[in-house]
Amino acid sequence: MNPRILNQDLANKIMPAAAAAELIRPGMTLGMSGFTGSGYPKAVPVALASLIEAAEQRGDKFALRILTGASTAPELDGVLAKAGGIEFRVPYQSDPELRSRINKGEVEYMDIHLGQVAQYTWFGFLGKIDMAVVEVSGILPDGRLIPSTSVGNNKTWLDLADKVILEVNADQPAGLDGMHDIYYGTALPPHRQPIQLTQPGDRIGEPYLKVDPAKVVAVVESHGHDRLGHFAAPDECSLRIAGHLVEFLHHEISMGRLGPHLLPLQSGVGNIANAVLTGLRDGGFEHLTAFTEVIQDGMLDLISTDTICTASATALSLSPDGVAEFARNIDHYRSRIVLRPQEISNHVELVRRLGCIAINGMVEADLYGNVNSTHIAGSSIINGIGGSGDFARNGFLSCFVTPSTTKNGAISCLVPMVSHVDHTEHDVTVVVTEQGLADLRGLSPKQRARVIIDKCAHPDYRPMLHDYFDRACHSSYGKHTPHLLGEALSWHERYLTTGSMKP
Amino acid sequence: MNPRILNQDLANKIMPAAAAAELIRPGMTLGMSGFTGSGYPKAVPVALASLIEAAEQRGDKFALRILTGASTAPELDGVLAKAGGIEFRVPYQSDPELRSRINKGEVEYMDIHLGQVAQYTWFGFLGKIDMAVVEVSGILPDGRLIPSTSVGNNKTWLDLADKVILEVNADQPAGLDGMHDIYYGTALPPHRQPIQLTQPGDRIGEPYLKVDPAKVVAVVESHGHDRLGHFAAPDECSLRIAGHLVEFLHHEISMGRLGPHLLPLQSGVGNIANAVLTGLRDGGFEHLTAFTEVIQDGMLDLISTDTICTASATALSLSPDGVAEFARNIDHYRSRIVLRPQEISNHVELVRRLGCIAINGMVEADLYGNVNSTHIAGSSIINGIGGSGDFARNGFLSCFVTPSTTKNGAISCLVPMVSHVDHTEHDVTVVVTEQGLADLRGLSPKQRARVIIDKCAHPDYRPMLHDYFDRACHSSYGKHTPHLLGEALSWHERYLTTGSMKP
Repeated sequence: MNPRILNQDLANKIMPAAAAAELIRPGMTLGMSGFTGSGYPKAVPVALASLIEAAEQRGDKFALRILTGASTAPELDGVLAKAGGIEFRVPYQSDPELRSRINKGEVEYMDIHLGQVAQYTWFGFLGKIDMAVVEVSGILPDGRLIPSTSVGNNKTWLDLADKVILEVNADQPAGLDGMHDIYYGTALPPHRQPIQLTQPGDRIGEPYLKVDPAKVVAVVESHGHDRLGHFAAPDECSLRIAGHLVEFLHHEISMGRLGPHLLPLQSGVGNIANAVLTGLRDGGFEHLTAFTEVIQDGMLDLISTDTICTASATALSLSPDGVAEFARNIDHYRSRIVLRPQEISNHVELVRRLGCIAINGMVEADLYGNVNSTHIAGSSIINGIGGSGDFARNGFLSCFVTPSTTKNGAISCLVPMVSHVDHTEHDVTVVVTEQGLADLRGLSPKQRARVIIDKCAHPDYRPMLHDYFDRACHSSYGKHTPHLLGEALSWHERYLTTGSMKP
Repeated sequence: MNPRILNQDLANKIMPAAAAAELIRPGMTLGMSGFTGSGYPKAVPVALASLIEAAEQRGDKFALRILTGASTAPELDGVLAKAGGIEFRVPYQSDPELRSRINKGEVEYMDIHLGQVAQYTWFGFLGKIDMAVVEVSGILPDGRLIPSTSVGNNKTWLDLADKVILEVNADQPAGLDGMHDIYYGTALPPHRQPIQLTQPGDRIGEPYLKVDPAKVVAVVESHGHDRLGHFAAPDECSLRIAGHLVEFLHHEISMGRLGPHLLPLQSGVGNIANAVLTGLRDGGFEHLTAFTEVIQDGMLDLISTDTICTASATALSLSPDGVAEFARNIDHYRSRIVLRPQEISNHVELVRRLGCIAINGMVEADLYGNVNSTHIAGSSIINGIGGSGDFARNGFLSCFVTPSTTKNGAISCLVPMVSHVDHTEHDVTVVVTEQGLADLRGLSPKQRARVIIDKCAHPDYRPMLHDYFDRACHSSYGKHTPHLLGEALSWHERYLTTGSMKP
């Protein structure tokens, strides 16, 4: 008997991935596990892609609606997109093949705040979930499920799906057992109650997922690690951004607006976020907390030294080195990390109550503090808004970070008007580039513009931004948020035409 | 003794408005009462304007930073703006004189979600409050204050200001006593606790405001009703919008997504909102609830017949007829209406928990469901975002309503790209015009575009929108959110140049 599958009823449903995939029919809506490349099913989607390809060869259409926690991996989004099997995708993606098809107009993609996906599904706004396909790290004798490296929307998929396929992955750390906190107190309005969580590490639920065994149509024994790359050392630009942010946080402490242990950190993914975390440690901070979505290597490192003493998230997205370190010191981490459903990790009620310090990357910001997190040239999506809105709107501080330029200086990340708005002028308090930090709190639009240009813009683009702003202040229809509509998006147009925003 | 001023200590501080105004010095930051034209101080600002004008005549600068609940009236924003006495204004305004000066670039205005103003002030993001100027309807023997027709941010101003001027308005209904619920349980993170409110009518606080009597530097006996106009009967366009929305709500009930009593309504101000309320009553709804910002005549009417049996708000904005009806049946209304601080009436924790049905007006929406609530041609502000974001982001439904055209058809309210974004594609679920209703739930950007054009656009503009969309789908850089950047804002440019969006 598989030591990870201890319930006999469910063990009786063990079958190969190919047989389980046969249970998935064209047109179905699937709720799948997976969040930032972790905890996604690794066997069934690959088998499913083969079925889809075979159907295509027969001339049959076989397309699915795919809902997940967040991004997955080539073994899920990649293979299904390549096979032409995704007709609708929610709520986040980062796979190159899938992204390419979305931007060719071949796949319909809906970009939702990650904290709202579960309730939208409960409300019925995303249709019926026909099948859940969820990776777990084990099944208890009583049939409860030990979650895997991410929780994501798995509770919702298991609760709402007509049928369930479980993948039990023998390669996920056994030590995950006990690290999760699955809150079963959610309800539909008007029956909702306050969520009684007041500290990032509070446990308000149960360590295991529940599933009606009668709904489980297949259990698949799977293998394989989450496909996450090695962790790069922060580059010079990221270190400078981190330096500005750390200096700002020290300043806020000196002004009495923050205590020495700050407030719970939310940190987006990627190099800059990791550099900021490293910067906090090197900046002498200790006994910090995190209330965030994803724990990456940078945060694990801080937890190992108790720079961060409690971290709440919905996913562990670790490099192979990070996985090894995690397994080596599992008891240390289990007492400091809580993995929750993303409905809770990103819940506006909790983000507001805890007063998170939100630090997220972006594509570009404009003079007035509007932020584009998702689109190139207003039309081509990169990944999605993720949880940035859940945290930015409701946190204590809403920081957005980016290098001041990209593409070797051909693109300025500070522009007259962003080509797509994900975070409005009402929701952005701090903008940081390697050039400096713009503190937008308490400023009118024109005051924000001056600070953003002077603190954040690259010197190559600063005169161009000043020129636009000055002329807009003179000639704009209204002078509250001065704009020259014929020019506002011209930098993006020029980039598309000439390959550079420079004239 | 003034029967409204029963505390001797405070009665000793009674002085004329002119004397109280003398206590306000140039450069001060004032936290003033007032929300949607109700409960604003009526005597001190007028006296203050005279002082400012006198200073101007002497060649002295006398400018203030003014924070309120929301919009006020000519007796506050109007006189102070005309005198040139406002250098910075937060968080909402609707006075023509002030708006004009903001759009000339003479006044710096910061537009904040109304539910966040109090916490931003507590965080120190808006600077120190030097003086609170707050209208109340009475002072109890123990010094507690009976709030007036709006609560707004008064608790915060009274708590945080260095000094306090109280206006006790003898013309505000005495029957307001007992109608308010002032929650004193807020705190700064990391000390915040869940707000234990689970139904719109729950009382979680106290009926009175508290103030440290030592901070009160003046008590002014004032008079005068809130300056609110008579209530216009809904026009044909508003009735058609209301009809679409009522039909939609019935459909949602039939689909099982809403119960017969719906969920708590949040309704913006104005004619369309009132028509929707009337439509709900005529549509056979009963035993509804409201968790909203403002109670206007339309809602009062529904409360009178128990179509709405409980209403939570932060302000009563009633016409003279409404005020008379309110006074006539005060006991009926007092048992059904709760007036709260706007921090609570608009709190994201509560809006999310209760699952509000948010219905707000807008300036324009674009093909992809982005909504502009505040700006004409991207640069000239009208009023402000108000509480629309507090409710739209977090409610069960997020409905935005507008006529399909304005200015006799010269402006289409559905455009290729909005000229300013207040509510992003992630936050808008329903768009309604007199032409029809677009249900955007569960749709990708291109799917949304087709529905918005076909359901909401005016027939005069529908072919133009189809043409833009079709060409964008063909030629856009990315095909996820198709746009032609050189044309996206051309409708607004054409309007500014020719007076019409039509070619």
